[in-house]
Amino acid sequence: MYPPGMTTVTVWNEYRHERENDEVREVYPDGIHAALANALEERGHDVRTATLDEPEHGLSEDALDATDVLVWWGHKAHDEVDDEVAARVQEHVLDGMGLLVLHSGHFSKVFKGLMGTTCDLKWRAVGERERLWVVNPSHPIVDGVSEYVELPQAEMYGEPFGIPEPDELVFTSWFEGGEVFRSGCCFYRGAGRIFYFRPGHETFPIYHRDDVLGVIDNAVSWAAPTHGATTTVGNVPDPIEPLE
Amino acid sequence: MYPPGMTTVTVWNEYRHERENDEVREVYPDGIHAALANALEERGHDVRTATLDEPEHGLSEDALDATDVLVWWGHKAHDEVDDEVAARVQEHVLDGMGLLVLHSGHFSKVFKGLMGTTCDLKWRAVGERERLWVVNPSHPIVDGVSEYVELPQAEMYGEPFGIPEPDELVFTSWFEGGEVFRSGCCFYRGAGRIFYFRPGHETFPIYHRDDVLGVIDNAVSWAAPTHGATTTVGNVPDPIEPLE
Amino acid sequence: MYPPGMTTVTVWNEYRHERENDEVREVYPDGIHAALANALEERGHDVRTATLDEPEHGLSEDALDATDVLVWWGHKAHDEVDDEVAARVQEHVLDGMGLLVLHSGHFSKVFKGLMGTTCDLKWRAVGERERLWVVNPSHPIVDGVSEYVELPQAEMYGEPFGIPEPDELVFTSWFEGGEVFRSGCCFYRGAGRIFYFRPGHETFPIYHRDDVLGVIDNAVSWAAPTHGATTTVGNVPDPIEPLE
Amino acid sequence: MYPPGMTTVTVWNEYRHERENDEVREVYPDGIHAALANALEERGHDVRTATLDEPEHGLSEDALDATDVLVWWGHKAHDEVDDEVAARVQEHVLDGMGLLVLHSGHFSKVFKGLMGTTCDLKWRAVGERERLWVVNPSHPIVDGVSEYVELPQAEMYGEPFGIPEPDELVFTSWFEGGEVFRSGCCFYRGAGRIFYFRPGHETFPIYHRDDVLGVIDNAVSWAAPTHGATTTVGNVPDPIEPLE
Repeated sequence: MYPPGMTTVTVWNEYRHERENDEVREVYPDGIHAALANALEERGHDVRTATLDEPEHGLSEDALDATDVLVWWGHKAHDEVDDEVAARVQEHVLDGMGLLVLHSGHFSKVFKGLMGTTCDLKWRAVGERERLWVVNPSHPIVDGVSEYVELPQAEMYGEPFGIPEPDELVFTSWFEGGEVFRSGCCFYRGAGRIFYFRPGHETFPIYHRDDVLGVIDNAVSWAAPTHGATTTVGNVPDPIEPLE
Repeated sequence: MYPPGMTTVTVWNEYRHERENDEVREVYPDGIHAALANALEERGHDVRTATLDEPEHGLSEDALDATDVLVWWGHKAHDEVDDEVAARVQEHVLDGMGLLVLHSGHFSKVFKGLMGTTCDLKWRAVGERERLWVVNPSHPIVDGVSEYVELPQAEMYGEPFGIPEPDELVFTSWFEGGEVFRSGCCFYRGAGRIFYFRPGHETFPIYHRDDVLGVIDNAVSWAAPTHGATTTVGNVPDPIEPLE
Repeated sequence: MYPPGMTTVTVWNEYRHERENDEVREVYPDGIHAALANALEERGHDVRTATLDEPEHGLSEDALDATDVLVWWGHKAHDEVDDEVAARVQEHVLDGMGLLVLHSGHFSKVFKGLMGTTCDLKWRAVGERERLWVVNPSHPIVDGVSEYVELPQAEMYGEPFGIPEPDELVFTSWFEGGEVFRSGCCFYRGAGRIFYFRPGHETFPIYHRDDVLGVIDNAVSWAAPTHGATTTVGNVPDPIEPLE
Repeated sequence: MYPPGMTTVTVWNEYRHERENDEVREVYPDGIHAALANALEERGHDVRTATLDEPEHGLSEDALDATDVLVWWGHKAHDEVDDEVAARVQEHVLDGMGLLVLHSGHFSKVFKGLMGTTCDLKWRAVGERERLWVVNPSHPIVDGVSEYVELPQAEMYGEPFGIPEPDELVFTSWFEGGEVFRSGCCFYRGAGRIFYFRPGHETFPIYHRDDVLGVIDNAVSWAAPTHGATTTVGNVPDPIEPLE
């Protein structure tokens, strides 16, 4: 029943920082998408990438039809994502495609559209320590994780995080500077599963860490579509039972 | 602490059916909004109304600022609601304004925007019996209700209902024709509370019933804003704790 | 990551009706446990059975240690289950063993202990039609199910069902006599997953139906333990961070 | 509709530390119950107290019948609470009595019985700084609270906290030593509302703080019973609808 076989993943990236900023390019020479794609391929997934500056941002109907799980990284160009493409992605998620939203993707059109809320938060970029505590140890997304994941240098995100109450809360972060944050959040929307995962940054080398990539790998498997029931909506003129 | 005093309610209505269709006008001669407004005034709320064909649909910033709880009825003209006004209503809900979405309002821009999902369902309009069972008997919204509310003639709405899992499920409907439906659903979004309540129709005189109006009265009180914590979002450059 | 390989299932049954009552014996000549065990074996699980009148009810520490998922059928002898054994089962569930509670098992010591609530409900045994509607079509438990499962003759269970709000609601039942019921309910408790599934009866041949057995098969796979994070509890005298 | 008028509160305390230990007596000379009772009385509630060494622990049927909200402090003598009294309290909660469980009460028979889980956690008693962040700013329990409550010296409680996913999560704690904890948790059980609130200690003077007492005051109002629907359970031999 469960998602056996290979999961087809599309890693989407704005891909701007890496081309415009030397410091970022040094950490992710081929872009954040390439780093994530390589890591997921090594872990057995079938991966392609897509970026903002491709036609339709690389997210055509065909591309999405061929995607089990979409991984989303965006940061400074959320507004440049076409409304129609954002709506298309949202529709595919509701039809069953999995979605992983990473770090600053909390402010993407796609995530805000699916949540219906502000998705706002506190932030501070001084490179402090973060410790992501597992608060739901039995969740498949934390398979193989220790009690916590510790990041020596991270951008702080703090509460209140403007999201609906997660359907499952997996991680809560502790920050050296004194804040906390719900940093691993599961949502069920339509036939799709969504995981928001906080870690990530364009200059701190967080997506080169085995523990972080292991969680992303697990989350891809968790979010992969499963078959469910066959249902219909719309007008059903004939009652099943005889009426009086 | 709790919402004592008077709650200020705005009842919003498309107000089309009642002007265009004799059968509807007979049931709601001054419009559905007038029937609901009178009922809520009699029950102690401070009520005004607004309709689609007023400037800004009667939902200017000032009007929403003065509203504790907005009641929404729409059916055949969802598309004519201006995107900007729909976004404004959504923002006010996230800032704390309560929202009651009635019957066919499940397909309004405002509700779909706040849910992030299709909000689709099955339907059949043959006038069959509906019984709304209370599944959360301790909820303040069902204060004074018996085990169920029975409607002799109703339009059927059937599962699957394309919404996020409600934060609290209060009613589930049984239909004579053989279907079931989650017909009273609470959602917390930002600082606002949302209640979706299924009963209502433009020709069945459902909003003249004391039991249905009693639930709507309770839901208005439940959705009225309460004071909460004072919080901030955005950049907080200085850590609370000293960093290493 | 997900539960591949074989799931080890223990089907537990009171096994009283079938030995004491001819009508029941005719439907389940070797007991309800045998019918369920055969069906789950045919569907690829590794199954053993246990019954009330065995020593320790067949649920010794060793037996539970060797069980991935426990299926529970009880009806008229809930009180005869030893408190210590019930507590042992509860502990194993919290440590990760899956649990399927069927039909009248809602009133078992094990289920009531895990829920903390009355688990009470309405009931009527006249053999009326039941239709279990899928309300969460994307859930793995309803893989392969149509929009609903229809049982021509069933005992009615009606709301209010005295349980905590399910973590995931999968089925809601319609009954010919006019009631509704949350009939497929998922709960996460500790490291364990629990599924309450309403269908079943000692004289209506419900566990000979392919659609019902298909759901039970799916639920076994869903409830099978997955690896999660490694965690500790208890006293941790040394702080991770230096204190002021 | 909402709980206007006076709420009747019973503050329950083990009342052992305060009589046996000079350090504790200095902080709470008349017992923790007296400190809490005075504070709640000053805030407009009608308060009585009860302690472990009274007959039936001061929690007779009559005493509970007269209680809207029970506040529970226990620490070192959980085992001395009579099973029958614990079951009685649990039953009253399911029938609608509110319950506030403070600090080490997480390990009381009453709380464990209502949760059905281990209720275990990490702990460290070295007097470090705790900061309780509001994660649900619109919740009535945090009315009047700032973004966080800061305690200069507290016992640490750390995740994983062995509870069911709270129905509403209000506070998450940051600890100086590096841990996090879900420190304000709402649960709906039967007709009753339960709030677990972490702050409190027998030697740190936490229940003399205005901010902590303000939250407890709010929580008492939130947990006070509201009228809901009238329902029945048990056998209903006659169907509402005619059967085929």
